[in-house]
Amino acid sequence: MKNIPYKFYLPEDKLPTAWYNLRADMPPIDPMIHPGTGAELRADDLKHIFADVLSEQEMDDKTPHIDIPGPVLDYYKSYRPSPLCRAYNLEKLLDTPAKIYYKFEGNNTSGSHKLNSAAAMAYYAKQQGLRGLATETGAGQWGTAMSMACAFFGLELKVFMVKISSQQKPYRKAIMETYGASVTPSPSDTTEVGRGFLAVNPDSAGSLGCAISEAIEFASGSEGYRYALGSMLNQVVLHQSVIGLEAKAAMDELGERPDIVIGCAGGGSNLGGLISGYMRDRLQGRAAPKFIAVEPQSCPSMTRGRYEYDFGDTGGITPLVKMYTLGCGYMPPAEHSGGLRYHGMSPIVSKLYHDGYLDEAVALPQSRVFDAAISFARVETILPAPESAHAICAAMDEAVRCRESGEAKTILFGLTGVGSFDMAAYSAYISGAMRDTLPTDSDIEAGFATIPKLNFSKY
Amino acid sequence: MKNIPYKFYLPEDKLPTAWYNLRADMPPIDPMIHPGTGAELRADDLKHIFADVLSEQEMDDKTPHIDIPGPVLDYYKSYRPSPLCRAYNLEKLLDTPAKIYYKFEGNNTSGSHKLNSAAAMAYYAKQQGLRGLATETGAGQWGTAMSMACAFFGLELKVFMVKISSQQKPYRKAIMETYGASVTPSPSDTTEVGRGFLAVNPDSAGSLGCAISEAIEFASGSEGYRYALGSMLNQVVLHQSVIGLEAKAAMDELGERPDIVIGCAGGGSNLGGLISGYMRDRLQGRAAPKFIAVEPQSCPSMTRGRYEYDFGDTGGITPLVKMYTLGCGYMPPAEHSGGLRYHGMSPIVSKLYHDGYLDEAVALPQSRVFDAAISFARVETILPAPESAHAICAAMDEAVRCRESGEAKTILFGLTGVGSFDMAAYSAYISGAMRDTLPTDSDIEAGFATIPKLNFSKY
Repeated sequence: MKNIPYKFYLPEDKLPTAWYNLRADMPPIDPMIHPGTGAELRADDLKHIFADVLSEQEMDDKTPHIDIPGPVLDYYKSYRPSPLCRAYNLEKLLDTPAKIYYKFEGNNTSGSHKLNSAAAMAYYAKQQGLRGLATETGAGQWGTAMSMACAFFGLELKVFMVKISSQQKPYRKAIMETYGASVTPSPSDTTEVGRGFLAVNPDSAGSLGCAISEAIEFASGSEGYRYALGSMLNQVVLHQSVIGLEAKAAMDELGERPDIVIGCAGGGSNLGGLISGYMRDRLQGRAAPKFIAVEPQSCPSMTRGRYEYDFGDTGGITPLVKMYTLGCGYMPPAEHSGGLRYHGMSPIVSKLYHDGYLDEAVALPQSRVFDAAISFARVETILPAPESAHAICAAMDEAVRCRESGEAKTILFGLTGVGSFDMAAYSAYISGAMRDTLPTDSDIEAGFATIPKLNFSKY
Repeated sequence: MKNIPYKFYLPEDKLPTAWYNLRADMPPIDPMIHPGTGAELRADDLKHIFADVLSEQEMDDKTPHIDIPGPVLDYYKSYRPSPLCRAYNLEKLLDTPAKIYYKFEGNNTSGSHKLNSAAAMAYYAKQQGLRGLATETGAGQWGTAMSMACAFFGLELKVFMVKISSQQKPYRKAIMETYGASVTPSPSDTTEVGRGFLAVNPDSAGSLGCAISEAIEFASGSEGYRYALGSMLNQVVLHQSVIGLEAKAAMDELGERPDIVIGCAGGGSNLGGLISGYMRDRLQGRAAPKFIAVEPQSCPSMTRGRYEYDFGDTGGITPLVKMYTLGCGYMPPAEHSGGLRYHGMSPIVSKLYHDGYLDEAVALPQSRVFDAAISFARVETILPAPESAHAICAAMDEAVRCRESGEAKTILFGLTGVGSFDMAAYSAYISGAMRDTLPTDSDIEAGFATIPKLNFSKY
């Protein structure tokens, strides 16, 4: 029996050197579809949006292992390996026989796992000779990650930041600018779609949907630019596989094997990455842990959504993808402050769940999530992002079940990031102002009302 | 020749298990003096202010190695070892033959090295059966560290936070409250000294001096409370020695030895900690690196201050200590935003500098410091605290000198923390609004004007 340290860092020479492509081993996901024509999309159809290699990766369901390019691997080494942590103090607090591990992705300036994919996107764009990338950001984590990666690889970056966020979080904007990004509050008068929004509502606070549309328009109209998106895409799940591969390699080094793997699920890219290492075992017919996805009760795409074709954005301009969705028009209740607001779920994760490879999805109320976050912070020292706290809460529930049953299960969960920029939500919880409001069935029905009625009988 | 990784983490079983007390090996520092009586202070005189063990540690100049108590060691393991980083990307940027290493202390929720001492203070207070601690905080890093440590060890914490900071940084206040601290903007009407300040100026923005006085008054008047201070004290330098011991142990593991060790210097606790490992060699007569302290030109205690007795606080209520000081009434120019604002310097560091054990002190203008910080952030990915960037800038200067001379020196500097909460200063720099204003000789003269004329002829 090895002596397990509090934090285990994989030696640099044992870091994964290839991403793992779940699609090579799983049943095929339904193709992306052009919303106007109903035609299946191919990689070439994406190359005016994404960098060439990224377009190919988006469609690749054949190649199981894709080498991480040398410069990306070197970039990873500036903040990876992320630690595999043994939650001794949490175990003690819960008085559980369970062994709790977490993979902590928050030890970098972006504060989350987003950097894993941002680095890959910036590298491939640079390699192709592009001048810059355009993207959108809400709270700012993805924009920060992209600005860090673009600064490193020598690319311009244009960020459309939801206007209300840029006003409420001026320091997030400042971080992006420190790394050289150009940040434009959205809606802006610099794009046609932005001007359209402003014409209707000059005081618009902005939305992620509008920012996405502006970023795509900017990229399309700017020589040498492409668009970058940090969640949901197949390419993002691919890049995030580094989390799960590292986690498995570290567990192997320690002689440990999880009985349960738990990840929070918004767009699904973190979850898809986290489970990659062990899901491969299941897809190839070997024994594997139980996989649990955790989502907010306010945005329950897997537990209450439909598995059908929908737009990837809220504005309805992207290709259609088959996924668990609440409808692209879905709006979480105003009280929801725990992150993971996306209406849909990664097509890869959706398919794994639909076909039973991903065992379970649970939805949690945010008051329980914040309560778990604070218990965790006080004993494990790390202040978690509310998103990550969904996984913490579910892991604590499992550990308490172990206390009750006497089983000494091994639990691994993903701690995707830190909560330093989510203090308004923590304050609301501490002051007692936070409420749990569940969407009604008609709230969810309403999310589908805005999807254009298209007729794709073959799907 | 070992293959040096980007980040090296000492294995947990090689973490230091004892702090190193520089005073055991260095010439004696002049005693602390009671400002009213002129009497030398002894440990017992401090026990109504600090926890008992901390009072003893403050005076201990005999014991070279003090065991880190088991619970503190376990707490350290929740965020330590901190990585020893090889700045490959910075070396490449500077095209230098120098090898640059940095010890990064920002990978914890407080964002800085402060937690190393906070953990010790909270533990000893709890062990003594105290109910709580009181402290002050300006920007919030120290208050955050104390709140984390008190939450863990089960102590109450009262934080007096400079009022203007609590208004400008509400989220720092929220983090402390999340960890269970009670935060009071200072000046407050809850203490006599606070009410005195408010009577003179009801709209006072507060100052660290006033917050210190309120915290001491609160601790004195509250059953089971003591006061905690995060910088300058001998006990803090002792606890921070873990940085330098870990750094040396990690360098030894890699088969490396620095030619130069560079630390930023505010109150001196980080610097004293960082140099501890190698300074022991010098104090015991063995070969040692060159030690360089870096301070802001706006607050140049070592390069332009006097080595004499002064108060530790700006209000003139603490014991008198012999140190490099700009006078306890010194105010840095209003344009100064780079941190390290303290008027004095740790008595230990002061003595080492005065006696020539610490080789050099350099003062840098903040524009150069922020320029270095941004260059560093873009290639090394970490956004540094402005304080830490002083050391970065000096290390880059040394590396450039190596490029010019062709010498392949090994440079080690301390990266004490992250800049996530210093974005106002970064924004000012990026927008071109930041200026360098040097204090005049009469500015420095003015700092001494408020020191009561005391007559201690024997010193």
